[in-house]
Amino acid sequence: MSESPLGLVEVVGTGLVGTSIALACRRAGIDVVLTDLSAEHVRTASGLGAGRPKGAADRPMIVVVAVPPDHLGAAIVSALTDSDALVTDVGSIKSRPLQDVAARVTAAQLTRYVGSHPMAGSERSGPLAASAALFDGRPWAITPHSTSSADATAAVAALVAVCGAVATTLSPDEHDVAVARTSHLPHLAAVLVAGRLAGAPAAHLALSGQGVRDVTRIAASDPALWQQILGANAAAVTDLLGELREQLDDLIAAVRDDQRDALHRILSAGVSGTQAIPGKHGGPVRPMRSVFVSVPDHPGELARLFGDAGEIGVNIEDVHIDHDPGRPVGLTELVVEEGRAEHLLGALESRGWTTHR
Amino acid sequence: MSESPLGLVEVVGTGLVGTSIALACRRAGIDVVLTDLSAEHVRTASGLGAGRPKGAADRPMIVVVAVPPDHLGAAIVSALTDSDALVTDVGSIKSRPLQDVAARVTAAQLTRYVGSHPMAGSERSGPLAASAALFDGRPWAITPHSTSSADATAAVAALVAVCGAVATTLSPDEHDVAVARTSHLPHLAAVLVAGRLAGAPAAHLALSGQGVRDVTRIAASDPALWQQILGANAAAVTDLLGELREQLDDLIAAVRDDQRDALHRILSAGVSGTQAIPGKHGGPVRPMRSVFVSVPDHPGELARLFGDAGEIGVNIEDVHIDHDPGRPVGLTELVVEEGRAEHLLGALESRGWTTHR
Repeated sequence: MSESPLGLVEVVGTGLVGTSIALACRRAGIDVVLTDLSAEHVRTASGLGAGRPKGAADRPMIVVVAVPPDHLGAAIVSALTDSDALVTDVGSIKSRPLQDVAARVTAAQLTRYVGSHPMAGSERSGPLAASAALFDGRPWAITPHSTSSADATAAVAALVAVCGAVATTLSPDEHDVAVARTSHLPHLAAVLVAGRLAGAPAAHLALSGQGVRDVTRIAASDPALWQQILGANAAAVTDLLGELREQLDDLIAAVRDDQRDALHRILSAGVSGTQAIPGKHGGPVRPMRSVFVSVPDHPGELARLFGDAGEIGVNIEDVHIDHDPGRPVGLTELVVEEGRAEHLLGALESRGWTTHR
Repeated sequence: MSESPLGLVEVVGTGLVGTSIALACRRAGIDVVLTDLSAEHVRTASGLGAGRPKGAADRPMIVVVAVPPDHLGAAIVSALTDSDALVTDVGSIKSRPLQDVAARVTAAQLTRYVGSHPMAGSERSGPLAASAALFDGRPWAITPHSTSSADATAAVAALVAVCGAVATTLSPDEHDVAVARTSHLPHLAAVLVAGRLAGAPAAHLALSGQGVRDVTRIAASDPALWQQILGANAAAVTDLLGELREQLDDLIAAVRDDQRDALHRILSAGVSGTQAIPGKHGGPVRPMRSVFVSVPDHPGELARLFGDAGEIGVNIEDVHIDHDPGRPVGLTELVVEEGRAEHLLGALESRGWTTHR
């Protein structure tokens, strides 16, 4: 790896994201110092090779603030006022923390701040869950404000590169509108649908298929964290929820009054929306096809299936395993490029697999 | 396999589901005759080994009606009035077709009808997509009405068993309320969220992660089919959409007015809902944990991962492959029983895999 433009990096907050950034910097040979309200978290992160506890003489070139949403503003202000370092943060929301910070630091101090947001995480938290590879290939938003210095923006871009992520530059406001649409609205829709399941009769829930599982999966996330995220992006989220409500009213009228054209239009807009999500690796969406295979539910069988698919030489783009009530056979869905599907099906069948088209 | 109680089976409608049922019956040695408006579909299904075209002398013991929702009622009526056979159908909705049928046949004819609904399908359609194993381990609702004969119900139960599915008995009304909650509401929520994505700026959509992909996946389904399904279950779906609207109003108020307790309550209800969905194989939900592994995106690498997991002896309950923009490395999530996760992580790491906790 060529010489990084990054000098000493300070990571404030040694949870999952902070410690993972520290590990990625250390992997690139960059010196890292660690700060956390919990001395134990610092010791743990340090023990994992994420850097050393910050000493009184350390003068970081850049401070990365990785604390929970409710504490972001205060931590960014401290970093700007306590040192001459460039400062970024990794919070899920960019506009409101910037306002907090702008009101409490000088104009000169504010130039040293550029927000950012890696689109990566895990259902686990804390330094033990960290990994230098957490951001490999993930989107990472960089959100300079109107007076951010070019040096600060360049340093954050260098940090994103060191972490192996893919930078997308947006204004703080634009970022918050974007995540309201691509993250917060889907999350809340999942929560509302899941909320309608609690308390339903078991005989009704027995009819649950893969669809409802997929739609509601993210609703299992930590309510306390999401309460903070939504609180900090209330305006953009409220706007989108308002749009959703208007669409819901149209939908209710279309279903109740059997307005078939209106219903078809709403359903078709959904199809278009699924096609708008960028494809794997950011490229155009390639036509994919699902191949279904019955797989006995015990160790080794999936291995054998993937072993066979690997020998056949077809790349598996995605996998879903159906949770089948009552039977020790799972239906595994392999998503492959459309032009490869028939070859895979034929080759799997010739190896004795039961396939479903 | 022991002697089946089923005599000659007639399948009306040789699409994906009808042909798959015919193939499952043939697999069990049961004689099957086929009917379809399209003579070509019958020839195709017959060529696949799903049975023979129905002849004038054929007297089926049971007729399985597998036609699109809009034609269900008429096809069930024909089957009841044209013969003395028992009759079932495999439509997604049970109450409205029953009303249609009850109004057009005699009370004696109606006793020979019992509705049913296999919870299985595919993104593909037509006889070429069929498979005898389509229903293996899937839920299959049996929905006798108040005057269904015991013989008719028993014959449908025998059909479900022949198809390898897991029977759940519900009244027609109860079935429609159940699928409104577990299938139609999630589908419509996915459609509404996906509808908010179409037309969004590419830089915003670049921030799309796995969450929004999971939530919106089923919104890609055929609008024409869903228009029919929703039209036939309008009352139950409208009721649930009304509940959703009330919850959405509460949610909008909670986000807009920063009502943290109310927001936490709504988010927590979502967590409870995800826990209410029955576990794999219908048993209680076992605690699961996700193990994340970086996998290069080319043929053979997933095979190697599953091969290693198989040798390690840990059963993979579910898999998600993250679609990473911009990089040829995928993050693969393996869901395993909580008590096996650390063993799997350690063993994968010792085999050189990059894991993320």
